[in-house]
Amino acid sequence: MTPTHTAADLTAVETEMRALLALSNGPLSPLYGMMRYHLGWADTAFAPAASDPGKRLRPQLCLLCCAAAGGDPSVAVPAAAAIELLHNFTLIHDDIQDQSTHRRHRRTVWDIWGAAQAINAGDGMYAVSHLALLRLRERGVPAEQIVGLFGAFDETVLRICEGQFQDIGFESRWDITAADYLQMIGGKTVAIFAFAAHAGATIAAANGERAAHYGNLGTALGRGFQLRDDVLGIWGAAAVTGKPAADDIRRRKKSLPVIMLHERASTADRATLERLYAGDEVPPDGVATVLEMLNAAGVEKECLEIVDGYHANAFGLLSASG
Amino acid sequence: MTPTHTAADLTAVETEMRALLALSNGPLSPLYGMMRYHLGWADTAFAPAASDPGKRLRPQLCLLCCAAAGGDPSVAVPAAAAIELLHNFTLIHDDIQDQSTHRRHRRTVWDIWGAAQAINAGDGMYAVSHLALLRLRERGVPAEQIVGLFGAFDETVLRICEGQFQDIGFESRWDITAADYLQMIGGKTVAIFAFAAHAGATIAAANGERAAHYGNLGTALGRGFQLRDDVLGIWGAAAVTGKPAADDIRRRKKSLPVIMLHERASTADRATLERLYAGDEVPPDGVATVLEMLNAAGVEKECLEIVDGYHANAFGLLSASG
Repeated sequence: MTPTHTAADLTAVETEMRALLALSNGPLSPLYGMMRYHLGWADTAFAPAASDPGKRLRPQLCLLCCAAAGGDPSVAVPAAAAIELLHNFTLIHDDIQDQSTHRRHRRTVWDIWGAAQAINAGDGMYAVSHLALLRLRERGVPAEQIVGLFGAFDETVLRICEGQFQDIGFESRWDITAADYLQMIGGKTVAIFAFAAHAGATIAAANGERAAHYGNLGTALGRGFQLRDDVLGIWGAAAVTGKPAADDIRRRKKSLPVIMLHERASTADRATLERLYAGDEVPPDGVATVLEMLNAAGVEKECLEIVDGYHANAFGLLSASG
Repeated sequence: MTPTHTAADLTAVETEMRALLALSNGPLSPLYGMMRYHLGWADTAFAPAASDPGKRLRPQLCLLCCAAAGGDPSVAVPAAAAIELLHNFTLIHDDIQDQSTHRRHRRTVWDIWGAAQAINAGDGMYAVSHLALLRLRERGVPAEQIVGLFGAFDETVLRICEGQFQDIGFESRWDITAADYLQMIGGKTVAIFAFAAHAGATIAAANGERAAHYGNLGTALGRGFQLRDDVLGIWGAAAVTGKPAADDIRRRKKSLPVIMLHERASTADRATLERLYAGDEVPPDGVATVLEMLNAAGVEKECLEIVDGYHANAFGLLSASG
């Protein structure tokens, strides 16, 4: 599969999503306008815009796995669109839950239109993601297979809700181990990568065992992605992440680097960390202190080695998928 | 179909829902605990409880229409469970959006566990409602029919989101006509009644035309239900509604009686109404003033006549469905 092929398919995914959220002029138009704004296609007045749409990694993974498993990725386009819509529905709700005012350099939906309408826009986008998945029928995917994909799709959403439930719970706890963290991201981030890979292979008519193999590939990629994102949230340059440097520290995120630091820190350092994380946000000199402790503990290098391990695992699975 | 039969089927719906939200003991247990609490099965510590579960009207309509269309209502039980779970997911989110602290004499999910976790519990229940619908497969419903039901199910959710979007918008507007109101409840309340009736008939293997006829029956019943609920929200006794008398006035709801009053009131009365509705809530003497204006305008009787009209329409459709 050539890169050109992939680019063309991602355009098809975008077209598919736009068809499902087409502009209407009636009184309901702003509901869909909020969704289009979130996806980067509209400005706050719902006029067309071209903002950073995000990386669209998950639909890409679905199409690539469909092709790798010997299928025609154009058939999988509705599933890829459903996956990206699902991901974005969870982001709209996440931003309310985390009270994040900005995403991808723009104000978040709830920050502009209020939490009540943002809950609504997210619920609506979740409904639309199902309608996207149903469009597989028009591309000739058998009904029986679509029913199976629906089950896996909504099981994935449940895993995401479970991960989000745990993540919110982590805010008030320090007894979190690396294993707890892996379980949490297993729901919050990894499940949708696994579904994307699994669905792509399934649509390519892979048998159950082979589709599960691709699901494992998605799991490895998802873990690597989330942990790399955690590293970027602390050490990434603002130009890359679109957020101030070390923003995850300021926001008191208990990502793996911080959990690792807490586990191995001296009693004094641990007390400092807990004290800095006890307020609403960590002040700039506190962020600097946490960064110094993290760097002294060698956490970044260790995390990047774990990321490399996940990626090696993914590449191994990909070569073994033949 | 005998009343005994109906009662038995509603027990089956309850069993079906409980199977989908079974107690787990792991760290994720509270997520499902919040859902069970909302459904009336658990207390705030997630111990078993038997609170008022609500009327379960929508699943009942689904089973009755399945039977009326000549089907076996036990086959439709998973669809009935899906409909009730969908309805309750929207209630969990509605309570956040309306900042309602109580429902059915108990505190609401967000009031106990916070808005972030309540958003999560609602999202999770929406996912579970899909998993419920999929269980039709185990009762022998063909995959092709399930795919069709899924499309109608998520179109219904979109209508609910649209209605909720309009309802929230009404809070800051007075240029609302009776027609606007009917469009709003058409999404927020009526669509799920229409789906319930349509799905029941579809599972009974009714053809498209006959299923659409049952959908119309559901529409008439849904309109009558919502308007009667609006009347109860103003004139209903506290013992019946579980809320203080005239609570919808206190909460500044723009239901049909209030819209009708506003349309026909004198300029002075209209100004009084708008002034009373301008604050956070209408004080007790203001509620008394609005009630006096409503009674002088004869709005209650007129609304009940409209309810009767919808019910006559529904009965007509039921007799014609033969």
